[in-house]
Amino acid sequence: MNPIARMIETHPATPFVDAGALAECIAACLECAGTCTSCADACLSEDSVADLRSCITSNLNCADVCAATARILTRIGTAKTPNVVAMLEACRTACADCATECEAHAGHHEHCRVCAEACRRCEEACARLLAALG
Amino acid sequence: MNPIARMIETHPATPFVDAGALAECIAACLECAGTCTSCADACLSEDSVADLRSCITSNLNCADVCAATARILTRIGTAKTPNVVAMLEACRTACADCATECEAHAGHHEHCRVCAEACRRCEEACARLLAALG
Amino acid sequence: MNPIARMIETHPATPFVDAGALAECIAACLECAGTCTSCADACLSEDSVADLRSCITSNLNCADVCAATARILTRIGTAKTPNVVAMLEACRTACADCATECEAHAGHHEHCRVCAEACRRCEEACARLLAALG
Amino acid sequence: MNPIARMIETHPATPFVDAGALAECIAACLECAGTCTSCADACLSEDSVADLRSCITSNLNCADVCAATARILTRIGTAKTPNVVAMLEACRTACADCATECEAHAGHHEHCRVCAEACRRCEEACARLLAALG
Repeated sequence: MNPIARMIETHPATPFVDAGALAECIAACLECAGTCTSCADACLSEDSVADLRSCITSNLNCADVCAATARILTRIGTAKTPNVVAMLEACRTACADCATECEAHAGHHEHCRVCAEACRRCEEACARLLAALG
Repeated sequence: MNPIARMIETHPATPFVDAGALAECIAACLECAGTCTSCADACLSEDSVADLRSCITSNLNCADVCAATARILTRIGTAKTPNVVAMLEACRTACADCATECEAHAGHHEHCRVCAEACRRCEEACARLLAALG
Repeated sequence: MNPIARMIETHPATPFVDAGALAECIAACLECAGTCTSCADACLSEDSVADLRSCITSNLNCADVCAATARILTRIGTAKTPNVVAMLEACRTACADCATECEAHAGHHEHCRVCAEACRRCEEACARLLAALG
Repeated sequence: MNPIARMIETHPATPFVDAGALAECIAACLECAGTCTSCADACLSEDSVADLRSCITSNLNCADVCAATARILTRIGTAKTPNVVAMLEACRTACADCATECEAHAGHHEHCRVCAEACRRCEEACARLLAALG
């Protein structure tokens, strides 16, 4: 079991949503924050950096939104549902934007392909949590 | 002129929204992130910490959302408007929640009063920017 | 292979240190940032919150340092070795402090036990990277 | 009085160091995090982006370290002095590196000149706090 799932399991409060879906979304946010930070740096190192400006910006934005979303989702002791929902919407939007940018470069840059996959996984995990929160 | 306004002024790109309103909102987000981090720590130090759990959580959430929002607003080189709008909505929501929590304790704790004011300023700055992006 | 390792592998630049040790340290930082954010929230939810103030502060500090360290380690395109070394020292210090705090409560709170393990893993990964950087 | 100074003044705990120097350092960290995030975006927008890679990386690193340092300095309820000292060292190192990078471009890019000034102010504020902590 990954450490985030174990942390939720051992938390004194009951999560505001299915614990498995929550752990999966937090893990997807942390992973996506990591791959986006790396993809921004890899794009900056490419010879074609001038063509990758928009991709780099999407990467940096997505890393920041995912990192903040992971933290907010993790705070299950006192549920702040409107806050969680608005943040999940912002995260889904940032992940969709970054996935689209990276997919456009996936044929030339393998790091964009790997990053786009992480963005799509996180976008879907946010969508599932939003659906569960109704 | 504050440094953020000077940075926007010297940036090679034209901002996606009125430069003055943008600089004001970024400054409000940075200030609110700072006061919320401090208010969480101050509440944690109070004898009545057990009654301040929900306030501390709101403070921590608001600090994270404001910090991420400041960064996304700052990236004017390539406008990602849907991303900016969703993040401003999340920030306005987090600031409103944290202001309400802190206002409930403002009579007993001066740090909550100061923090609530910063939250309301940031909430209003986000609302103004959302209206301008409308 | 985890996504961070794949990102390093597909990056156009050669890492400033052994790629495997680097990927392991970044993953340990992200994991520790996640468990510390959760442990702070779990401690805040405990009946004995007043006895856990110092632990909560260590958790919050450690989460912030680990998140920043993960980002700095990830930027391999232009090596900033003195910066990396100073940050690894700060991260090792924060992880050691948080592990010691959490270990003191591990008998009563399973979340502190899980979190302490993540802190020790991250502390060791930072120490290994510092040793490799000589 | 700026809001950070008012928050420290209204905090139930006594700061671990002179309150004025502490408030000044936190404000300098927040300002530097803001200008560095902006300078990275401005550099990325320049025609000469390929020559500014190292500067952009220094900007991104410095923004992350300054943001984390501001948070750790703000948590005065339970002093974690070794943690604070190590983080101030990392912040001083990151600010010095970023100032040097930005100063090299200050003749061509006004945003680098403004950012270098913020980095030097933050570097000096960290050095003063380190000296005070002995």
